[in-house]
Amino acid sequence: MSAEPPRHPTPEEFRSAGYATIDWIVDYLAGVQDRSVSPAVAPGEVRAALPDTVPETGEPFADLLADVDRLIAPGITHWQHPGFYGYFPGNSSPPAVLGELLSAGLGVQGMLWSTSPACTELETHVMDLLVDLCGLPDRFRSDGPGGGVIQDSASSASLCAVLAARDRAGGAAVLPDLRVYTSSQAHSSIEKGVLVAGFGADQLRAIDVDDAYAMDPVALRAAVDADMAAGLIPCLVVATVGTTSSGAVDPLVPIAEVAGPAGAWLHVDAAWAGSAAVCPEHRGILGGLEHADSYVFNPHKWLLTNFDCSAFFVADRAPLLDSLSVVPEYLRNSASDSGEVVDYRDWQVPLGRRFRSLKLWFVLRTYGVEGLRAHIRHHVEAAGRFAERIGVNPRLDLAAPVSLSLVCFSHVDGDAAGEELLAALNATGEVLLTHTRLSDRYVLRLAIGGAQTTSTHVDRVADLVDRLV
Amino acid sequence: MSAEPPRHPTPEEFRSAGYATIDWIVDYLAGVQDRSVSPAVAPGEVRAALPDTVPETGEPFADLLADVDRLIAPGITHWQHPGFYGYFPGNSSPPAVLGELLSAGLGVQGMLWSTSPACTELETHVMDLLVDLCGLPDRFRSDGPGGGVIQDSASSASLCAVLAARDRAGGAAVLPDLRVYTSSQAHSSIEKGVLVAGFGADQLRAIDVDDAYAMDPVALRAAVDADMAAGLIPCLVVATVGTTSSGAVDPLVPIAEVAGPAGAWLHVDAAWAGSAAVCPEHRGILGGLEHADSYVFNPHKWLLTNFDCSAFFVADRAPLLDSLSVVPEYLRNSASDSGEVVDYRDWQVPLGRRFRSLKLWFVLRTYGVEGLRAHIRHHVEAAGRFAERIGVNPRLDLAAPVSLSLVCFSHVDGDAAGEELLAALNATGEVLLTHTRLSDRYVLRLAIGGAQTTSTHVDRVADLVDRLV
Repeated sequence: MSAEPPRHPTPEEFRSAGYATIDWIVDYLAGVQDRSVSPAVAPGEVRAALPDTVPETGEPFADLLADVDRLIAPGITHWQHPGFYGYFPGNSSPPAVLGELLSAGLGVQGMLWSTSPACTELETHVMDLLVDLCGLPDRFRSDGPGGGVIQDSASSASLCAVLAARDRAGGAAVLPDLRVYTSSQAHSSIEKGVLVAGFGADQLRAIDVDDAYAMDPVALRAAVDADMAAGLIPCLVVATVGTTSSGAVDPLVPIAEVAGPAGAWLHVDAAWAGSAAVCPEHRGILGGLEHADSYVFNPHKWLLTNFDCSAFFVADRAPLLDSLSVVPEYLRNSASDSGEVVDYRDWQVPLGRRFRSLKLWFVLRTYGVEGLRAHIRHHVEAAGRFAERIGVNPRLDLAAPVSLSLVCFSHVDGDAAGEELLAALNATGEVLLTHTRLSDRYVLRLAIGGAQTTSTHVDRVADLVDRLV
Repeated sequence: MSAEPPRHPTPEEFRSAGYATIDWIVDYLAGVQDRSVSPAVAPGEVRAALPDTVPETGEPFADLLADVDRLIAPGITHWQHPGFYGYFPGNSSPPAVLGELLSAGLGVQGMLWSTSPACTELETHVMDLLVDLCGLPDRFRSDGPGGGVIQDSASSASLCAVLAARDRAGGAAVLPDLRVYTSSQAHSSIEKGVLVAGFGADQLRAIDVDDAYAMDPVALRAAVDADMAAGLIPCLVVATVGTTSSGAVDPLVPIAEVAGPAGAWLHVDAAWAGSAAVCPEHRGILGGLEHADSYVFNPHKWLLTNFDCSAFFVADRAPLLDSLSVVPEYLRNSASDSGEVVDYRDWQVPLGRRFRSLKLWFVLRTYGVEGLRAHIRHHVEAAGRFAERIGVNPRLDLAAPVSLSLVCFSHVDGDAAGEELLAALNATGEVLLTHTRLSDRYVLRLAIGGAQTTSTHVDRVADLVDRLV
């Protein structure tokens, strides 16, 4: 051979670089609270400092890690900072990080059972464990017609629900006649999924909400009835348990009473709030879920598992597979042909898939039921205490009912004052909050849920609010 | 507070568990060649051995790692084994594993520039570096109307091309009149993407191929002309550079000469073969790419970067963003409003996204241009030598021209003999090959490309073939 293989790092070089990376991460997370949550960088500033070519010959690993320390870490928003209260939390934990590391080290593909049996079987197993852990309906277990799969995001999972619903109702042949319903407070991913699936924007009905920003089932019924009277076909209703703006909970029972008789698929998006169901006292928000055709929640938001880990369940996998199964010769194999195995490729849009269940399995076992419940309960209690502080402040209003660990509040002097308060809070570098609009009013959101965030940190936000408002 | 937070692993526990995980991976990869490539497990066997509940209280990390060793590793297909020749390679390397580890440790979200500026800017930077490294057309650079983004898979990237093409041609309003063209040898993800996007199966035209299994541009022109004459709208042509079955290369120049005047988007799927473009001598397969509207290749296949890392480029990002940008209030921010930053959320279907560019950056810098070229060249040379061995074996035929590092061969005694040979090879435990069908003939595929695979390993496959055929 004239073409020699490249020089790969030796096992001992890999080990040494691995230890150094672990050290860097442990130290980063142990010290992250001393950094400013948001980086002080202008657009283009990070990139301008980066080496601008691929080197001809390789560089030592220490140089890479030094550049992460010097060029990258100062330019990220520190989602693992205990003062991160923006959007929704993006949880991380040591077992999840190490599960992800193992997944990378094993480097397998879970597209088919046969491409790595343990990857598929552990995933089926942990999804059934989640059914137990969260008290979900038995119909989502894998031993009946239903089952669960890990996807990258609730966006992708909800898209799969849209596709299954669309095709169960007749698919491309009747597409212009199909209609989809969700509340005006639903996440933008629902609209995006509907558009991806080939619907026009006018085929998505934005149903009105009540004073607590939850879908009004009477308005839903009116919209569905009107469409059916016009000869249109309601194919999907998406209910949200824990909206992004305010954590509102759509009432599943009356929504199911509309969706079911209309023949529409009922998908429940509990991307954030669903993690709270590890606590029996919070399972009321999922009342009626036994009528849903599909359900998604994200352990990567509030259940200590690193992104990406979105848990998607269906009551009947047949319509999902009917939409997503395309089997070329080069993927055929005797295990699949036997019908005895699950091929998760058919449960998602992409073909390839990582071994994501490892990190979730590690989290469940490292924290145990008690640890996971403590994580949720501590944040919910902290949110309640923060809301009390807002409630007694004459310059602030609670902008929506407190939902689990999400507190929304407005400035009584109006939008500009609210924007100023948000800017002042974030300018401290100690915290990061984001905003939304509710009833056309500027609203600050405090989304509590970081792995390192404790009630002490939340009390500190309340102090900052009192000082800066 | 009455609800105490959970007990998290301490920094020193995290460090110790991290070292142990690194040790496990280093040892696993150093010894993987001594394992059987495919696991000897029956459906359900792995799961039956797993602990069947989430424990009430947490378990020590050592127990988790022991279970990976005892229950998981024996049940996976060893994609990193040097004898893995199935499907296409799923590359891994130490810098990629550690880049993935750092990404998990940082735990940031790259959905918007503002949610972690360095995450976005490093991604833009490495995508431009790939343009240089692979000699891609300048139109895919980020400093003009185009640019690149990392997606999870070529499936997802090609779906985005379908969506942009669909909507540029008029979207939902004209959907039934739109037509998509790809060869009969295209990857199944193209059909899947077209169906996801709301097209009917009959709106996808499977264009005939020539004797080398490459798309016949004359047949493409005939199909496009016929559809246009019937008042239909050709919105997308998908060309493949390196088909999955045989590595065939569709001729981009004559295909572009049909697609361009017809007003159709030209997407080029080089998921596997694209990595070869790091070598100047292999860039001929991409001749004509300067006419493409979008391009995808997967560093996670054959460029030493762990899945998921799919590099997707567009010549003009406007149609992509028109299809995929949905901006609710809670994601609005001043940086986005300024127009000075990239928000990659608008370049993909899901909202959330990991910091994937770190691992690719680490790979480019650890191997350098020379190392990456050596990786490709060594495998291409090994494939040539293997093909010579097949060529002189009277019981075997080359079933297609050798393409880079992919060799396809058939048994002269027919399909059953080929199936028996594949089974016998795989039963040795030393190798894993997969099959396809070409011209209705059963074909064995040897896809060379593993990070640990050298010409010595490939010679061993040739010896096995000689012995078992």
